[in-house]
Amino acid sequence: MANPNDPTLRSWIDIPPTSDFPIQNLPFGVFETLERGTRLGVAIGEYVLDLYAVAQFGLFEDLELGSKMPKVFRRRSLNQFIALGRPVWRAVRQRVSELLRHDSTALRSDEVMRACLLRQSEVEMLRPVKPGNYTDFYSSIEHATNVGTMFRDPNNALLPNWRHIPIGYHGRASSIVVSGTPIRRPNGQRKAPDADAPTFGPSQQLDFELEVAFVGGRATELGSSVPIQYAEDHIFGLVLFNDWSARDIQSWEYVPLGPFLGKSFGSSISPWVVTLDALEPFRTAGPVQEPEPLLYLRQLDAHNFDINLEVAIQPENAPQTVVSRSNFRHMYWRMAQQLTHQTSNGCNLQVGDLYASGTISGPTPDSLGSMLELAWKGTRPIPLADGSERTFLLDGDTVIMRGFAKKDGVRVGFGEVSGMILPAVQ
Amino acid sequence: MANPNDPTLRSWIDIPPTSDFPIQNLPFGVFETLERGTRLGVAIGEYVLDLYAVAQFGLFEDLELGSKMPKVFRRRSLNQFIALGRPVWRAVRQRVSELLRHDSTALRSDEVMRACLLRQSEVEMLRPVKPGNYTDFYSSIEHATNVGTMFRDPNNALLPNWRHIPIGYHGRASSIVVSGTPIRRPNGQRKAPDADAPTFGPSQQLDFELEVAFVGGRATELGSSVPIQYAEDHIFGLVLFNDWSARDIQSWEYVPLGPFLGKSFGSSISPWVVTLDALEPFRTAGPVQEPEPLLYLRQLDAHNFDINLEVAIQPENAPQTVVSRSNFRHMYWRMAQQLTHQTSNGCNLQVGDLYASGTISGPTPDSLGSMLELAWKGTRPIPLADGSERTFLLDGDTVIMRGFAKKDGVRVGFGEVSGMILPAVQ
Repeated sequence: MANPNDPTLRSWIDIPPTSDFPIQNLPFGVFETLERGTRLGVAIGEYVLDLYAVAQFGLFEDLELGSKMPKVFRRRSLNQFIALGRPVWRAVRQRVSELLRHDSTALRSDEVMRACLLRQSEVEMLRPVKPGNYTDFYSSIEHATNVGTMFRDPNNALLPNWRHIPIGYHGRASSIVVSGTPIRRPNGQRKAPDADAPTFGPSQQLDFELEVAFVGGRATELGSSVPIQYAEDHIFGLVLFNDWSARDIQSWEYVPLGPFLGKSFGSSISPWVVTLDALEPFRTAGPVQEPEPLLYLRQLDAHNFDINLEVAIQPENAPQTVVSRSNFRHMYWRMAQQLTHQTSNGCNLQVGDLYASGTISGPTPDSLGSMLELAWKGTRPIPLADGSERTFLLDGDTVIMRGFAKKDGVRVGFGEVSGMILPAVQ
Repeated sequence: MANPNDPTLRSWIDIPPTSDFPIQNLPFGVFETLERGTRLGVAIGEYVLDLYAVAQFGLFEDLELGSKMPKVFRRRSLNQFIALGRPVWRAVRQRVSELLRHDSTALRSDEVMRACLLRQSEVEMLRPVKPGNYTDFYSSIEHATNVGTMFRDPNNALLPNWRHIPIGYHGRASSIVVSGTPIRRPNGQRKAPDADAPTFGPSQQLDFELEVAFVGGRATELGSSVPIQYAEDHIFGLVLFNDWSARDIQSWEYVPLGPFLGKSFGSSISPWVVTLDALEPFRTAGPVQEPEPLLYLRQLDAHNFDINLEVAIQPENAPQTVVSRSNFRHMYWRMAQQLTHQTSNGCNLQVGDLYASGTISGPTPDSLGSMLELAWKGTRPIPLADGSERTFLLDGDTVIMRGFAKKDGVRVGFGEVSGMILPAVQ
């Protein structure tokens, strides 16, 4: 069987060279149409392949994937499919790759093609997973240093625990929404440092955070831990993640128990989950970890991934401006270390859990992953293409994040995660 | 129809006077037996009433509770039942009260009784809800003051935000277990203040936290908020909650993003959910809030509940010692304020969510809700009945929390939440 990541593979479907979804990617998602209801699909070029329809034509039958097939392909989330385990994900991706390959004819009759392929523009993408739990890490050393410099002491910007622990906190799972869902500006308590008392009202410091999240692929029992060398086996795939943040609410509430309402009004994820398998060619070494982590977090080889990331802001009825270009390879703490740390106390994992990276800032001023950093606490307004500028987001602004990896002429991308800011409820 | 809280009601079932489960309580839970599988039940004295069996005899039929009856009575959690809404919970509790009343004969034939009533000792109680989200508040002013005194400044023990915000954080939902589940001592990173570097190993400062949690009863849409006067409509009922805490892990990891692995190795809840309806007679005024909260959190009348709480420690093969006696009425921030605050930024609620109070410490030294406070950071060891003493929990210790309200000769109780500490994984 050909490796589905082979850069020489071509599809019989015409795929624009700038597409995030060539035959080497094949990310999984959940879509809905009036006629079909909810289905699991795979993105290919400008199309989505309806996995339930493919199964109806018997094209997965010889794989003997078990009694839950094809029912799992018409659920409202990927969770049940993911729970079938890595051998099943891999077999399905492999078969889809074969069916879409230039020399395959199985899908190419008019009848089969009409049943199995839809234009992405004709379907509604749903939130791909139902996360039972969501952790947000804080794993970019540049981001943690910037925040520490702005709010604490520039000479001791990193807290003493930061280089020892992939710091993280539990986030709110209920308010994670799919790309395209508008985000309502939150109300909340804010208190200016010089004010006598807090007031309640719309956040005046609404921000984005550029993150990548991974989707848990394998459950564990309470009391057991995942050794670092097996951690990546528990990862199904990755999505783009916008951890919307209300800085004024956050800064007043977060001591001593961490972020709460400054975050829980909404987090947005991209609809297509790019599998860790598809990202294998883009593995790369990360920053040197100094001091060396404790043994349970120690890892040889390359466990970062070279994924280009960018953020654009689009005011209402105006063009977009790219305000940041970063890369997932900058992450100091790696996904495997995050996952192993999460389970090191015996905490159990569930399929579909989300683990976000924390803001991914790079080393240069144009690679910062939040407006807080880009505008440096409001002191350096960000110029936009329409002549306006921003220190924080305004109502009507849409934030669009994109990501893709590229190597040997193959571009494996995430599509985008976007969301428009609606005015606060009065 | 008689009020099911009427203190003069009596059941035809013989109920010991010290029982937590008289006819005025009727808490809901989920039980399992080999023969029946999982069922929803109501506790009455030393028995559990099998709601599915009751429904099979047609005893809910005239209530016209909808098409999901009686299926919801054989699920693995209360979630689907709760989602049917308060009118349904109330109608079922009212009917169960009628069936168990001394003058009712509907259940009293041998055949019906055998089908509907089981001894609690013959069933296994399961976790009553599947929490999609879990928030832990920090709402006892005595607890917050004690922690601030120990770890920060005795003269400024409360942080500036504490009297303005019901401080809380998101906890890990996956590791919430039912009473009786053993708790594995967590491993983790700890660093003594005078040590050069952290080490990894079993927590040496394992603690309990005495809390009460409420179960969310009604979902909301993302972007909407629950006004304070309607907040209690979103509460199904209450459970006892032990927020196990590893103080050494917690103190090294929690800055700046809050508690994480120091908590997520396990939290225990009692199996019976006492409805807010059953607790209505025990409503009482809480502490005066000074300064007055902002308008969105302002509330007249009595929104605290007079619930006696106690904690016992039982070493292996030794008698129990009650180490703390507290009361839920001490809570500075009330459940309604917690819930309204949680939604004030538009965060959506889901049925079955858990909202824990935070450690409930009272004003006296014998009413403190954690070993950290009872032993005052290890300086005042707690004497136990077997002659040993504790500053933190040892392997083999079982912690048992109990709670009940009492008025007009009626005792409405929670039963208990217990858990034994197992040695850490090596």
